[in-house]
Amino acid sequence: MTAPQFSLPYRVMYYDTDMGGVVHNLAYLRWVEEARTKMSEALGMDYVTLAREKNQHCVLVHHDVTYLSPALPFDDVVVNGWVERAENASIYFLFEVRRPSDNTLCVIVRQRLALVQMPQGRVLRIPKEWKALAAPAQTSDH
Amino acid sequence: MTAPQFSLPYRVMYYDTDMGGVVHNLAYLRWVEEARTKMSEALGMDYVTLAREKNQHCVLVHHDVTYLSPALPFDDVVVNGWVERAENASIYFLFEVRRPSDNTLCVIVRQRLALVQMPQGRVLRIPKEWKALAAPAQTSDH
Amino acid sequence: MTAPQFSLPYRVMYYDTDMGGVVHNLAYLRWVEEARTKMSEALGMDYVTLAREKNQHCVLVHHDVTYLSPALPFDDVVVNGWVERAENASIYFLFEVRRPSDNTLCVIVRQRLALVQMPQGRVLRIPKEWKALAAPAQTSDH
Amino acid sequence: MTAPQFSLPYRVMYYDTDMGGVVHNLAYLRWVEEARTKMSEALGMDYVTLAREKNQHCVLVHHDVTYLSPALPFDDVVVNGWVERAENASIYFLFEVRRPSDNTLCVIVRQRLALVQMPQGRVLRIPKEWKALAAPAQTSDH
Repeated sequence: MTAPQFSLPYRVMYYDTDMGGVVHNLAYLRWVEEARTKMSEALGMDYVTLAREKNQHCVLVHHDVTYLSPALPFDDVVVNGWVERAENASIYFLFEVRRPSDNTLCVIVRQRLALVQMPQGRVLRIPKEWKALAAPAQTSDH
Repeated sequence: MTAPQFSLPYRVMYYDTDMGGVVHNLAYLRWVEEARTKMSEALGMDYVTLAREKNQHCVLVHHDVTYLSPALPFDDVVVNGWVERAENASIYFLFEVRRPSDNTLCVIVRQRLALVQMPQGRVLRIPKEWKALAAPAQTSDH
Repeated sequence: MTAPQFSLPYRVMYYDTDMGGVVHNLAYLRWVEEARTKMSEALGMDYVTLAREKNQHCVLVHHDVTYLSPALPFDDVVVNGWVERAENASIYFLFEVRRPSDNTLCVIVRQRLALVQMPQGRVLRIPKEWKALAAPAQTSDH
Repeated sequence: MTAPQFSLPYRVMYYDTDMGGVVHNLAYLRWVEEARTKMSEALGMDYVTLAREKNQHCVLVHHDVTYLSPALPFDDVVVNGWVERAENASIYFLFEVRRPSDNTLCVIVRQRLALVQMPQGRVLRIPKEWKALAAPAQTSDH
């Protein structure tokens, strides 16, 4: 496993949990969106400019989520992220949510996104600078 | 208490609850938004047309929320709503969340909204037809 | 495609949308949870009793979500659901979100759940009555 | 206005926004919960221990929220917090959400919370150490 390209620390809040006493499955996906957004910016993608000035947005086309072990109330977790690869019309990300205190792997998320011109919804070409950012996690164990 | 102008039945979902084993405080406000939206439409407000064709939106200016008794997992609750009054630039709603099975009053929400022209954020005059919809709950006990 | 075992009508709310002017990807998954919960109950699964009396919960183990076409503000959509199959420790669901007005297929969701004893997190055997509920959508086109 | 006792920086995400192109009213309240939780811990309240070991939770009894000016997509905002005062059965917080880039005051939130023993819901006495934390914002302009 190569080192993550971005790591977001996150503290589990009440609103992340449910009556089962663990984190609700939707909460992890919010954390992943935060990690993806901040990673994209850290890597130099100009998605903020594209959204603000051109109404172009990175939208989720597909994701595949595996829930391995629940994060618990008040846990300090980390969301690790990688840009797996980019094609003409798609960019692929991998994220994992881990609890560092015992190195538990909680959730694995694979996402495919497209860059879309709103409001028409037309799919745009992925900028070539974005393709250069790929640093796959090189793992076959997920 | 006058009869509600609108009643929305709601079933408590896992995502509405938290680790305390009760409904999370934010969930009630989602239900109230659903009730307000559906009540507005049932009463004949043309907010969908205003939003779609003119980019004019009813936005929340103030709300005051009292949490009296928690709703519980899988409860069947009801959100009752009233248009309290309307002024030139504001429309006031009252909502209560109740559990009919034991008539528990769970939450009371008072909201003031304005009609706003986006993207500028300019406050518009409340349509006079909306003012005619007011049917205050005539209660002083909240 | 066999007829859905359950159909949940849903009206798109403001809180379901985002700045792109379409429904946010997480909102569909809330609707699917509502559909799955109500379908489970309609089909006779006793998950409410299991949760309340035994602290046993159906938890998401894996889901695979394909976003085909966005639902739009104020759309009336429907979430159709099927129990695909059940094994000793897993039950598989298929959901689709459609906009009936133009029969657009918006989102496809495949989910695998387990029945878990909380707070230990021990995986339980799927009740045999649940296995009898399977009515696969018999489609290979997703 | 006295200096805040805690300040949480926050970056506006897609899931915080709605079709109006601004932050949805519920999102601010999530940020405030995050700020309150982290402030409580920073000030030395032992709410994590109380929740984990005694099933005692700080629950919202009342809040009053004024929306003055919307936060916008990708804004960097800050949530400032104060413990206003504490009584035998209640603790009062004040929060404001500001956009530092132009010092816009977006939202003001006043909250009253109680410490509650779950699952009975019995209201407990506020710990005397918590009372000593009050540092009211000493403002009359809200």
